[in-house]
Amino acid sequence: MLTLASDFGSPYPAAMKGVILSRTDAQLIDIAHDLPRQDPRAAAFWLRETIPWFPPAVHLAVVDPGVGTDRRAIAVRVGDHAIVAPDNGLARPVVRRLCAEHTDAPIVAAFEITIDDPASTTFHGRDVFAPAAAEIHAAGVNDMAEIDLLSRIDLGSCVDIAFPTPAVDDGVIHGEVLVVDDFGNVITNIPGEELDGVETAIVNDASVPVVETFAGVDRGERLLTVGSHGYVECDVNQGRGDEAFGLAVGDSVRLSLSSTPESF
Amino acid sequence: MLTLASDFGSPYPAAMKGVILSRTDAQLIDIAHDLPRQDPRAAAFWLRETIPWFPPAVHLAVVDPGVGTDRRAIAVRVGDHAIVAPDNGLARPVVRRLCAEHTDAPIVAAFEITIDDPASTTFHGRDVFAPAAAEIHAAGVNDMAEIDLLSRIDLGSCVDIAFPTPAVDDGVIHGEVLVVDDFGNVITNIPGEELDGVETAIVNDASVPVVETFAGVDRGERLLTVGSHGYVECDVNQGRGDEAFGLAVGDSVRLSLSSTPESF
Amino acid sequence: MLTLASDFGSPYPAAMKGVILSRTDAQLIDIAHDLPRQDPRAAAFWLRETIPWFPPAVHLAVVDPGVGTDRRAIAVRVGDHAIVAPDNGLARPVVRRLCAEHTDAPIVAAFEITIDDPASTTFHGRDVFAPAAAEIHAAGVNDMAEIDLLSRIDLGSCVDIAFPTPAVDDGVIHGEVLVVDDFGNVITNIPGEELDGVETAIVNDASVPVVETFAGVDRGERLLTVGSHGYVECDVNQGRGDEAFGLAVGDSVRLSLSSTPESF
Repeated sequence: MLTLASDFGSPYPAAMKGVILSRTDAQLIDIAHDLPRQDPRAAAFWLRETIPWFPPAVHLAVVDPGVGTDRRAIAVRVGDHAIVAPDNGLARPVVRRLCAEHTDAPIVAAFEITIDDPASTTFHGRDVFAPAAAEIHAAGVNDMAEIDLLSRIDLGSCVDIAFPTPAVDDGVIHGEVLVVDDFGNVITNIPGEELDGVETAIVNDASVPVVETFAGVDRGERLLTVGSHGYVECDVNQGRGDEAFGLAVGDSVRLSLSSTPESF
Repeated sequence: MLTLASDFGSPYPAAMKGVILSRTDAQLIDIAHDLPRQDPRAAAFWLRETIPWFPPAVHLAVVDPGVGTDRRAIAVRVGDHAIVAPDNGLARPVVRRLCAEHTDAPIVAAFEITIDDPASTTFHGRDVFAPAAAEIHAAGVNDMAEIDLLSRIDLGSCVDIAFPTPAVDDGVIHGEVLVVDDFGNVITNIPGEELDGVETAIVNDASVPVVETFAGVDRGERLLTVGSHGYVECDVNQGRGDEAFGLAVGDSVRLSLSSTPESF
Repeated sequence: MLTLASDFGSPYPAAMKGVILSRTDAQLIDIAHDLPRQDPRAAAFWLRETIPWFPPAVHLAVVDPGVGTDRRAIAVRVGDHAIVAPDNGLARPVVRRLCAEHTDAPIVAAFEITIDDPASTTFHGRDVFAPAAAEIHAAGVNDMAEIDLLSRIDLGSCVDIAFPTPAVDDGVIHGEVLVVDDFGNVITNIPGEELDGVETAIVNDASVPVVETFAGVDRGERLLTVGSHGYVECDVNQGRGDEAFGLAVGDSVRLSLSSTPESF
């Protein structure tokens, strides 16, 4: 199995699929090709939240603002999974998550991918990452160390992406928007546990009910809930939280768990 | 074979695919993940118009404004097909169509899906419907009755969605827009047979030619035709019918088959 | 293997997939379903740039403004590939490319597809092209001549699409925009070799640096580069070239390789 994720939109992923299927007989599964464009941090969030649900596979992930520069191309083995990606931090959060979810210590090994003279300087998805992912799929993740175009490197030498952790100051949680999903749900970095036992909270300047799920408020109304990623989300029932709350990726979110605006 | 349909956009369907492929070795086929959002009736139309073209399969369909409430999750067997969906009417029209198209009376059986303590209250596609669909695929549709997380219920107890039928009053057909497709073609609930032998019709206040296909009028011009679903459509050749006619889902459509505006 | 490409958006491709899978057991791969709508020339560009990367397969391609008229439906064999498409030029550029890339002269044979009384006049993707592609897949490309619904025709009788070639006048290259990709990169018909050794060029009235890849200029800045298709592209690093240059499909592009605006 080989999964594909990118910010390529369409039809560039098709060229990657052709390259892969010309070299190995894989079941291809699209993760997404509309990952947040040119935004490795937000894209890394989505990889971390989707790839671990899959059975062992080679996972090709390309969000690559540095394509054609001297940033490295890497492949990381985690147990029976392999992540193939540019060395811009995209792979590190999902690697950590896969390690954390493993019942025992998985083999983790990082490799640099070297493909001489790729056909283009602007489409390494097709010319570097797809051929490398196909080679890994064909050889098997267990045998990555034997593949000629891979050279062992230290995982610690690879660029990392850390998601910010919220700060707490005088009872107010200062968080940040990690991503906005396709529904407009605003996913913050504030752990869902913060809402335990809370009925109302103040987001920036607005008082908002804390509910179990979208339908806990009327259609079109704002709500706070613990989303499927385990974080506090600022949502609207059957509407767009990003618009109603005026929040976008990277914006700061002040969350006060007392229930009256006066507490600010 | 296992098909997937939802209004999830991207990348949530990937988590469902990972869950499924972790449990069963299925060929996955996407029906669509941009079904009309939070609109079970319009989504049910598209399921009815696409699923019956498939060979026997498990069909996972999630458009679920009531996620996390006490609405049931259901699975319906129709012959060798199974539909897995929230109990909000989404499944009933395609179940009827599959029954109608069967050459002999297929086995029809409805089940409630019970999954204790799903990991989230907001993403039952991943935590309830995908695991259930995978179980059904693994066990086989013929053996749905043996699956622990399914309990037999009466299909008649499941929420139904009925598409409205047009009314005829004084020679004028009063219909409704069922869906607008990706091209902007406006698909009404008026049976195509109504246009038999008609050369011009009046839609609301405009006189429009009735033609065999889009190219029956000049590029950019309005037309009426019998679309691929068998209904009267209000379209524009190489353009958007919804914009030209000013029509959206649920709008009423007055269709007069006499050819002069004065007849109103 | 069977690839699918269209301008159908969603969910119409699902009906085609159902029809195909009801008739043959194929691995389905989507090329794209958002090919430039109703624009066979731009769509033909993308088919030419994606299909040749695939191993031998049946390739179904439908961008068909003339659906339901007397335009023919055709299938063209090129070696072990088959292209199934409306006879509006869509298939010819990729057929030429496949021939050019073949190491020895491949068998090339064109066929008209005849399906009597298709169920619709507006959705031949479902009612003509999908059944034909499924038949070819089931029979095998080598045995296309034996398929009842195919009749041999002369490839030269099929509609062709030629991409314009740039003109050179007094040192100025007069090119044209072939397509704009999903990133907003403006792909012209000017061969990349024209930029060999050039450091700055004038596009219409603006002086723009020529660089190896996007990151050769600061984020948000304009650039010229040789894209992955081998043509000169007018791009913006992590931004949209079409907006920055004010260019759309079919627009003319004046490229001067001297570096001072005064040279015009």
